[in-house]
Amino acid sequence: MTDPIRVTVWNEYRHEKKSPEIAAIYPKGIHGAIADYLRDRRGMKVRTATLDEPDHGLTEAVLADTDVLIWWGHTAHEEVKDEIVERVHKRVLDGMGLMALHSAHVSKIFRKLMGTTCELKWREAGEKERLWVIEPSHPIVKGLGEYIELEHTEMYGERFDVPPPDVLVFVSWFEGGEVFRSGCVYYRSRGKVFYFRPGHETYPIYHNPQVLQVIGNAAEWLAPVECPKPIYGNVQPLQKIGEK
Amino acid sequence: MTDPIRVTVWNEYRHEKKSPEIAAIYPKGIHGAIADYLRDRRGMKVRTATLDEPDHGLTEAVLADTDVLIWWGHTAHEEVKDEIVERVHKRVLDGMGLMALHSAHVSKIFRKLMGTTCELKWREAGEKERLWVIEPSHPIVKGLGEYIELEHTEMYGERFDVPPPDVLVFVSWFEGGEVFRSGCVYYRSRGKVFYFRPGHETYPIYHNPQVLQVIGNAAEWLAPVECPKPIYGNVQPLQKIGEK
Amino acid sequence: MTDPIRVTVWNEYRHEKKSPEIAAIYPKGIHGAIADYLRDRRGMKVRTATLDEPDHGLTEAVLADTDVLIWWGHTAHEEVKDEIVERVHKRVLDGMGLMALHSAHVSKIFRKLMGTTCELKWREAGEKERLWVIEPSHPIVKGLGEYIELEHTEMYGERFDVPPPDVLVFVSWFEGGEVFRSGCVYYRSRGKVFYFRPGHETYPIYHNPQVLQVIGNAAEWLAPVECPKPIYGNVQPLQKIGEK
Amino acid sequence: MTDPIRVTVWNEYRHEKKSPEIAAIYPKGIHGAIADYLRDRRGMKVRTATLDEPDHGLTEAVLADTDVLIWWGHTAHEEVKDEIVERVHKRVLDGMGLMALHSAHVSKIFRKLMGTTCELKWREAGEKERLWVIEPSHPIVKGLGEYIELEHTEMYGERFDVPPPDVLVFVSWFEGGEVFRSGCVYYRSRGKVFYFRPGHETYPIYHNPQVLQVIGNAAEWLAPVECPKPIYGNVQPLQKIGEK
Repeated sequence: MTDPIRVTVWNEYRHEKKSPEIAAIYPKGIHGAIADYLRDRRGMKVRTATLDEPDHGLTEAVLADTDVLIWWGHTAHEEVKDEIVERVHKRVLDGMGLMALHSAHVSKIFRKLMGTTCELKWREAGEKERLWVIEPSHPIVKGLGEYIELEHTEMYGERFDVPPPDVLVFVSWFEGGEVFRSGCVYYRSRGKVFYFRPGHETYPIYHNPQVLQVIGNAAEWLAPVECPKPIYGNVQPLQKIGEK
Repeated sequence: MTDPIRVTVWNEYRHEKKSPEIAAIYPKGIHGAIADYLRDRRGMKVRTATLDEPDHGLTEAVLADTDVLIWWGHTAHEEVKDEIVERVHKRVLDGMGLMALHSAHVSKIFRKLMGTTCELKWREAGEKERLWVIEPSHPIVKGLGEYIELEHTEMYGERFDVPPPDVLVFVSWFEGGEVFRSGCVYYRSRGKVFYFRPGHETYPIYHNPQVLQVIGNAAEWLAPVECPKPIYGNVQPLQKIGEK
Repeated sequence: MTDPIRVTVWNEYRHEKKSPEIAAIYPKGIHGAIADYLRDRRGMKVRTATLDEPDHGLTEAVLADTDVLIWWGHTAHEEVKDEIVERVHKRVLDGMGLMALHSAHVSKIFRKLMGTTCELKWREAGEKERLWVIEPSHPIVKGLGEYIELEHTEMYGERFDVPPPDVLVFVSWFEGGEVFRSGCVYYRSRGKVFYFRPGHETYPIYHNPQVLQVIGNAAEWLAPVECPKPIYGNVQPLQKIGEK
Repeated sequence: MTDPIRVTVWNEYRHEKKSPEIAAIYPKGIHGAIADYLRDRRGMKVRTATLDEPDHGLTEAVLADTDVLIWWGHTAHEEVKDEIVERVHKRVLDGMGLMALHSAHVSKIFRKLMGTTCELKWREAGEKERLWVIEPSHPIVKGLGEYIELEHTEMYGERFDVPPPDVLVFVSWFEGGEVFRSGCVYYRSRGKVFYFRPGHETYPIYHNPQVLQVIGNAAEWLAPVECPKPIYGNVQPLQKIGEK
């Protein structure tokens, strides 16, 4: 019996408080919808954290108790304090998984981990998207069919300015003529990162069973490995050096 | 002054002989259209070879004198002799570049190099395709814009059953709802391989200036590197072994 | 409660029958040593199969009932029937994991999956090897330290003629001056492949707890994902094509 | 006739001014040694820039006129102004190649591009290193043998805390028992990055013909591709959206 995965779902949580329409879709916030699924359907130990809490809810203690951090932000990326970004970055490199959802592509933490601008094309026209499974042997796609279809969604298009993914899991098709690498795995130090495109504040994307399935699968995949902590710096030789 | 790149354009060359419509599009064959471009516009030293020649035109001498082999086949993959496939395979691993075009995805040589079935979805409905540039710093995309648009083409859709490309250069969007990894680079032994999707016998794809531009760029990229030939087998230690 | 992983450990099983020294190290054969560990310590459902059984022990029924196939061969690669290699290849592409150990680098099945010669340098001088962990967040390294040290082993050196691994997990150092990519993950169709270097008939490598730990971890990683089975061939559009 | 590649060789240039021993090895500075080779032997258009110049010698005008920036720093990484790091970062993402040499692994610019700590093990014991060629078809290894041997050098050992390279070109063996991914290619936005390990202030590494050969090859490889500049932000559909 292994311990349940400890997940922290972070949400900017501004849209839901300002807009009754959005609140109607996500009465407990986007974080609440995701947290409920992971807790009730996947047996994970879930907490949530939001921008307006002290330390954005991401104290050292919370991060130390987190296996996987899920990040959703949109309008207030700049309000996230650099000090907290540093703290999260350090914890990811130390093994905590990070899942960046949708507009988190330009969150400070995702950009810092990627080293590129992470920009893209976008359009809000409620168009159709199909996320095609590209790597069917990766645990993130467990239980899916050949693609996930979202009837109405915001478009994100290439070029997506990220490093080549270490595993490319999904590629999206959009009605208006674009494609997008919509599921990207990265190995970064002792941590793993997954970018997953779907999600929007005004579409009920996080109630879609397949989208939730992927988020649950990814949380399992991102959980840290009890792995070797490398030693850095000046070291003694393992083997004698010199003439033989 | 470097020597010109030596290219051999191989074509099954059956469609053009049977169908006046296809012959009208490619009076010198598909191989002829590609060869003319590479010779006249890119300054390469080009020969052609076809299925019905002795050894399919691919003698040891021809291969030894070839830097880059371009392969187009469609209806007669099974007629290519295994012995010749072995010969080409060996030469690719020895450094010769291989460019597999369109329906060459199920050619014997490409499948042998990939180790997978290389199957895909397809549809002939004359639909629109856009090949989006995914890796803009790769020499294969030199001189292009953000995408190449082909007004009427055959669809190829995921899942494309190939190993994850070592560089993913293009992803295609198709009108009917599919996506496709349409430009894929592979490092294989001392040789390099490029799969490029566009091309069809009844659409004038190989007269499209951007498609030709990519083929020319890829031929440059695929040309062998004057590189270290590894020694395999039983070797002496470079360093004394034993107690110190 | 998930079902136990079903593993088949395949061994050429010639050395152990001919040499009392080797039999003394592996009284139940190399396959027996590995099978015992996976069954007793990792709770897997394990069977074994060997070259001299009918169909080399790899009937359609056995393969259909196998999640992960572990392969050890050395002196008799050529005796493995092509028909059986085809059968195993097909099953790997259909989702069964394959772990190729040590001299299985030139087994027919591994070469077929890689598409290259899979050759390397080698030397039997009983020298020291260190397998350094390169990707500490990958599940295959769970529970290890920074490296595995093998006091006396056969050397395998670069260049190892394989495609660039999709994940490079270990790199080995050898006393005599060579390095080697000794743990390589590949995604191939719906299956996953792991090459793991350690192992030899006259050194007790498969009694080493860390080597066994990796084999157990890898078997867990290689187990098939309940994943989308792609449809290949001619398909209807998901979206209407034509003028709008 | 193509224009010569425009290279800027940047050096911290402190060691050479403080230590007569180092000045004796590099009378014109490390930058001078590299610049001379690229200019005289490779026909490139080379300038140099150093830490103590205004803007560290890296004005907007200089960067705009640079195809490839080579970076060497060791003791004064923290003195490099963040503003200049931002400027270089932006220019790399816009297409300028970056070659980070040796101790530049912890330069601000390399860390920013990688998103990880870029730390490693090290030891100054004048031990032997062999850089084995791992990908013999990559243009960076043109003209080499199977490995480069450096008789006396500083050791850098795994784990090297960088993202998995997009191409792994060299792996080093060290006498004392370590390995290191010593030649790593990264695609980052429209620019390319190459990390190359050899180099030290007190060993005459940058007079070694093979090391210089690699630096010259890499400068050619890193030169920008006349490539599509992606459009980011809100875009119109290429295709009409809605019911058909």
